[in-house]
Amino acid sequence: MIDHTHAPAARSWVDGADGHRDFPVQNLPLGVFALTDGQPRIGSAIGDQVLDLTGLAEHLPGAVRDALAQPTLNALFALPAADRRALRHALFALLTSDGMRLRVLPFLHPADACTLHLPFRIGDYTDFYVGIHHATAIGRLFRPDNPLLPNYRHVPIGYHGRASSVRISDVPVVRPHGQIKAPDTDNPIYTPCRRLDYELELGLWIAGDNAPGETVPIAGAWDRIGGLCLLNDWSARDIQAWEYQPLGPFLAKNFATTVSPWVITSDALAPFRVAQPPRAADDPAPLPYLYDADDQHHGALALTLEATLSTAAMRANGVPPHRLSRGHATEAMYWTAAQIVAHHGSGGCDLHAGDLIGTGTLSGADPSAAGSLMELSHGGKAPIMLPNGETRAFLEDGDEVGLSARATRDGYRSIGFGACRGIIAGAR
Amino acid sequence: MIDHTHAPAARSWVDGADGHRDFPVQNLPLGVFALTDGQPRIGSAIGDQVLDLTGLAEHLPGAVRDALAQPTLNALFALPAADRRALRHALFALLTSDGMRLRVLPFLHPADACTLHLPFRIGDYTDFYVGIHHATAIGRLFRPDNPLLPNYRHVPIGYHGRASSVRISDVPVVRPHGQIKAPDTDNPIYTPCRRLDYELELGLWIAGDNAPGETVPIAGAWDRIGGLCLLNDWSARDIQAWEYQPLGPFLAKNFATTVSPWVITSDALAPFRVAQPPRAADDPAPLPYLYDADDQHHGALALTLEATLSTAAMRANGVPPHRLSRGHATEAMYWTAAQIVAHHGSGGCDLHAGDLIGTGTLSGADPSAAGSLMELSHGGKAPIMLPNGETRAFLEDGDEVGLSARATRDGYRSIGFGACRGIIAGAR
Repeated sequence: MIDHTHAPAARSWVDGADGHRDFPVQNLPLGVFALTDGQPRIGSAIGDQVLDLTGLAEHLPGAVRDALAQPTLNALFALPAADRRALRHALFALLTSDGMRLRVLPFLHPADACTLHLPFRIGDYTDFYVGIHHATAIGRLFRPDNPLLPNYRHVPIGYHGRASSVRISDVPVVRPHGQIKAPDTDNPIYTPCRRLDYELELGLWIAGDNAPGETVPIAGAWDRIGGLCLLNDWSARDIQAWEYQPLGPFLAKNFATTVSPWVITSDALAPFRVAQPPRAADDPAPLPYLYDADDQHHGALALTLEATLSTAAMRANGVPPHRLSRGHATEAMYWTAAQIVAHHGSGGCDLHAGDLIGTGTLSGADPSAAGSLMELSHGGKAPIMLPNGETRAFLEDGDEVGLSARATRDGYRSIGFGACRGIIAGAR
Repeated sequence: MIDHTHAPAARSWVDGADGHRDFPVQNLPLGVFALTDGQPRIGSAIGDQVLDLTGLAEHLPGAVRDALAQPTLNALFALPAADRRALRHALFALLTSDGMRLRVLPFLHPADACTLHLPFRIGDYTDFYVGIHHATAIGRLFRPDNPLLPNYRHVPIGYHGRASSVRISDVPVVRPHGQIKAPDTDNPIYTPCRRLDYELELGLWIAGDNAPGETVPIAGAWDRIGGLCLLNDWSARDIQAWEYQPLGPFLAKNFATTVSPWVITSDALAPFRVAQPPRAADDPAPLPYLYDADDQHHGALALTLEATLSTAAMRANGVPPHRLSRGHATEAMYWTAAQIVAHHGSGGCDLHAGDLIGTGTLSGADPSAAGSLMELSHGGKAPIMLPNGETRAFLEDGDEVGLSARATRDGYRSIGFGACRGIIAGAR
């Protein structure tokens, strides 16, 4: 629902909010932070400030007050969507009315005085594979003549991930050890990963609950998404190659997954929902449980996605991060967010508020929009050149990967997702 | 550690405990139950009674009292193993000393007046594949000449499962819908599963915590297992066959996983730890991070495993459950429980108290010890005959599968795992 909270002319009295790249008053993302007392509270980002919603609760709608007293967003996202929309409207009113300034000011804190936390206690984390250009590029490395498997255009492919190792931006990623077998040897060795990679993804945060055995109809599936984040599905390519048959990736992925700490709500993203690109003539029609005309009409997301790399040497010499890729979610996603959720629930799997779903790597058709080094370096065979003359086939210790996403559409104020960064720490 | 709590001559004053098949005083399993007030409490099974440990807490060691006030076992299993051992010793003393009878009696409740709950808030659920005869039998259906993949004898294969859909015994299992593609058609359909199966597994409940990036050394891996349960990894074979490439099983498994409600503690199982069967001459030696002489000496488990099937018609006609299989965990498990845990943590994945790990289907070498219908019916081609003349290739609505496990060893009182049952409810 697009309403006055998306008006591009709306102004906030918070210094710097109107000109802020990511967090103007049209965004109002939700998250969990702590001040020096260390107690986790619920907050919203506005410009370079964090607004303490737990502290401000008595000025906010009654329906959300109990949920705002919790140390995570789980209870808030278990409420009906209308309650979170009422919260958005109340925050918008407080932050755009000069008369509210004195009341709200005590609850504003400089972002750099706040420690951000994971926004949810994550019940389950699932990763999908809906980036068709990524699936094609990876498939081509193994099967040049037949890169996409026969099920890809029928089934939104997904698999379960590890909830415990999801971390927020700026938590270092320890290079994992694992079993690696070189192609020319008979036996594997246990050694630090040599082909460490990132994957540029979006994360979907589930809202609401369905009971076990109860499916999620496609028509209501978007409403089960409370908000989005950036997600870096760090991948140990050499561990994965040896372990993944026949049950899929395991230790190659479960050492770390990084998410951006601010939840960009589906309300904030309402203006940026656009039509899903038409399928190719020879693509099969989605099965009825995955097809909804409304979803096809505005189920895609007008998001620009970027990844950057900064090596230790680049940082030491003041070289700015190097852009690895720039692409668009709409082009990358063969299945919509609603189709992902409807498929996940189609067998009766119960999804709960605070569950996290990754989209899979969102690469574009053009090589400049590839969302992993595996693609950018052609499986490691063609290392990329960095501005200071260094090269990379895969990530080295001290490398920092940053992901960013920006929602843009004519006639609306652009909003951003904030930071999703991780630096590689040496194997222990 | 084997101590006086395992003495076969030990007797309890609780009526019927000494002759109880599963829960004599040598067992003392832990679980969560509720009385008519509905409040979950921590309990132990003794004979046909449940002892309310939450209520009895003031008579139990101080170190566990706070944990016994929780509605799950997570806090208790986050404590050092010595604290849970002290609890076992205290319970043993209370239940074997006639002088304690009057003090304890008010906290004993008939098991059939208690509602059992899932014992843990499960952080993450992982399923392994260590049953080599199962892996070989399933592999043979796809690759008759080369049933085991090259990594199997090097890597304890595992994959992440769905924590939200784990249920305790006696919760009905709704037949899932899913995408199914017949071999002779080009396109899949969305329809109720037609090849529904069970899988006989053991579950390992994790105790303690390791930090992200911190591995679990094999020498300490058994100590990270707080206890065991039975686990039925219900499987939709037709959904799995179409969806599982390239990222593994997903909706084929996440509609339901059934566990037995009582946690058979690793302390109770101490006498039943036996030597791992020697590997075949052509098997590779485990890599050092998976090898510990002590684990090989007593890392296997002397457990007899059975599965039974009872159809609606059998129950209506008073026909007792039909035994589908009978086998031994020691023979079935190519990797020990400690090797499973050490491998899981070998890349720095953080494991936490209350995480659940399935072993994978534990089939024996003999067809009479096969732990799934997929094996028993040769992929559905040779339906099994039931005592009332019915046949089954896969499960039909109304079928009830029961799993059981029994620890036996000369010189010790045998103990059992209790019930792990599930009945198939028709697709919604």
